[in-house]
Amino acid sequence: MATKTLGGTYDITELTKYNESWQGEYTGKSQLVIFPKSTQNVSDALKYCNTNKIAVVPQGGNSGVQGGAVPVYDEVVINLSKMNNIRSLDKDSGALVCDAGCILEQLDNHVNEFGLTMPIDLGAKGSCHIGGNISTNAGGIRYVRYGSLHGSVLGLEAVLPDGTIINNLSTLRKDSTGYDIKQLFIGAEGTLGIVTGVSILTAKKPSKLQKFLEESFNLEIVSDGVLAQDITQQNKLWMIRESIIESISKGNKVYKYDLSAPISKLYDVVNDVNDRLEKLIPGLISKGGEIINQMEPADVGYVKSVNGFGHIGDGNVHLNVVVSKYNQEIEELLEPYIFEWVQSLNGSISAEHGVGIVKPAVLKYSKEPEVLKLMKMVKDKLDPHAIMNPYKVLM
Amino acid sequence: MATKTLGGTYDITELTKYNESWQGEYTGKSQLVIFPKSTQNVSDALKYCNTNKIAVVPQGGNSGVQGGAVPVYDEVVINLSKMNNIRSLDKDSGALVCDAGCILEQLDNHVNEFGLTMPIDLGAKGSCHIGGNISTNAGGIRYVRYGSLHGSVLGLEAVLPDGTIINNLSTLRKDSTGYDIKQLFIGAEGTLGIVTGVSILTAKKPSKLQKFLEESFNLEIVSDGVLAQDITQQNKLWMIRESIIESISKGNKVYKYDLSAPISKLYDVVNDVNDRLEKLIPGLISKGGEIINQMEPADVGYVKSVNGFGHIGDGNVHLNVVVSKYNQEIEELLEPYIFEWVQSLNGSISAEHGVGIVKPAVLKYSKEPEVLKLMKMVKDKLDPHAIMNPYKVLM
Repeated sequence: MATKTLGGTYDITELTKYNESWQGEYTGKSQLVIFPKSTQNVSDALKYCNTNKIAVVPQGGNSGVQGGAVPVYDEVVINLSKMNNIRSLDKDSGALVCDAGCILEQLDNHVNEFGLTMPIDLGAKGSCHIGGNISTNAGGIRYVRYGSLHGSVLGLEAVLPDGTIINNLSTLRKDSTGYDIKQLFIGAEGTLGIVTGVSILTAKKPSKLQKFLEESFNLEIVSDGVLAQDITQQNKLWMIRESIIESISKGNKVYKYDLSAPISKLYDVVNDVNDRLEKLIPGLISKGGEIINQMEPADVGYVKSVNGFGHIGDGNVHLNVVVSKYNQEIEELLEPYIFEWVQSLNGSISAEHGVGIVKPAVLKYSKEPEVLKLMKMVKDKLDPHAIMNPYKVLM
Repeated sequence: MATKTLGGTYDITELTKYNESWQGEYTGKSQLVIFPKSTQNVSDALKYCNTNKIAVVPQGGNSGVQGGAVPVYDEVVINLSKMNNIRSLDKDSGALVCDAGCILEQLDNHVNEFGLTMPIDLGAKGSCHIGGNISTNAGGIRYVRYGSLHGSVLGLEAVLPDGTIINNLSTLRKDSTGYDIKQLFIGAEGTLGIVTGVSILTAKKPSKLQKFLEESFNLEIVSDGVLAQDITQQNKLWMIRESIIESISKGNKVYKYDLSAPISKLYDVVNDVNDRLEKLIPGLISKGGEIINQMEPADVGYVKSVNGFGHIGDGNVHLNVVVSKYNQEIEELLEPYIFEWVQSLNGSISAEHGVGIVKPAVLKYSKEPEVLKLMKMVKDKLDPHAIMNPYKVLM
């Protein structure tokens, strides 16, 4: 069904999947999803919503894990999936310009044809949008090599709540002409406006030789390893890594934490939380890395394991407390303990997953009050009617 | 002489050198230079100045080439040179935390001892401050390898005009907890506040082998080259590069432009300007890369050469029009022609030197009106009394 509203033509389709987060933890009640096909469409829609004080949720591939891309109540969803054109690729410099709704894997495949590689890669690559990656300031497995999106994003096109189109879509590697406004939209999770276009620096794709060289960069911190012999094997190796999340979640409930801390302390959080639960929950027994409650009372829930994986190279660990059932008592032992642990090391309570609906209340463990005040100031100034992705990022 | 004023003890010394830019092009008339020794000193000084609406100029090593670090009239200079302590170095992650007044070369020497290297290096390294590098969003010769300061700066401590100390001095590589406020200060040239502390990601220092590997990354764009056999030779090679500016300037006047453009078009600006001057100034003759005015009238000034150097790898060229004497006629042939040339390619009128006092009026050639409006909004909100480095960056 197509309908002409909000200054353009949009399809209105079944709503359920746009109201639910990836794993179904967060569900909204939006009655309207719009699919802009151009930046002007986005501008028209936002202008209308801003004038009429209608709250909106920008949505990409909806693969975020903090509920940042789904409505909380009945906000209008603005889904970018129909803005998925590659605009240009400068093969000399590697600058790729594309719509925000392009799927990461498709971009990687495209630039691969020219011997280039995207500077970001993550498990959800088959569905996540580059605009969503940027809005979440996503990390992923290539971060250790290519660094932050704050460095590799060259320019952005974004639409402010009042419909103003910000054309900051530079393809330049170097530019020192004052405040770098686009940086505000990296990690803003759609609370300041909607990213509609992206200019990003791709890198020369490592050849085998170069792959080996890359490994050698890391040699001092690697005590064991295996080198893929071909692309198939390489993909299989990565599949092991990328299926960790799925395998942990299968048939379980999981308390997930995405933490940054100094590398030398990083894994301590897994052991500390393990020890704490073992000590404070009667009847729990640790077997190796596993904690098993022998009584397993079906109505209480028990801790199945405490584990951590991921990203030692860039100081980021995914801590998972796997339980048979969500349980208030366990939860109170985990929080605020884990956040205080992170704070004591000046770590981050969200290394690469963003804030979403889950963490605005605990942002204070990672940001000083003065920084939060500046964030709030920016938000109030850019989005005075507070229509952009309410309840997300800031309280 | 020491005097107790503005909430702390500061030395007041001879004023001339703090009123003049590096090559003497820009001169102010400040009667007061203060040398804070702590972040609290900076806070006290700014609070006082803000309350009393006294304009200030933050100053680092005063090696900038756009006059951003010197007063225009009688602004108070706040020179950071006495805040030069290294605060910490995490040898695992490479995160270096230091005062903003640390000299770049001294930081590089320090981290070198631990097998690490600063991600930025430039000709003025012996005098420039890391705080100034960040405030200018400086580029330099390692940019092609380690990328933008927007990526490698992990955290900043900054003081707002009202004295508020912003502690955003994270040492984490990964952090996706909302808007990255520190980014606003990178490239702000002290117009939003004063950067007092820096956390920056150093890199593993390339070994010979690794140096060779780095070269191999670039092999496809290098048609000829030489590999230094030892550190002495390496330093000598770099000295040739770093003395280009000095040798061009010696005994001459130079119209200097620091431009970014797509790499494939980059050197065209040198030839285009050369052709333009040759064609439009009667009596000029081109000999190879040199244009010589045979008449050389002493009272008019003539063009000695049009040349370009630097940074092909990251799309940045330093265009120099060397003249015997500054001349209005030549100037009118150069500007706005060069800026329009840059604009036509969506280039930058300042790739790595900042805006300073020189370029606020021509920022429009690189930034869309909507972006300039957002910059102005940020400026007005953070510095409502407009005391911070007036006449710089924005008009």
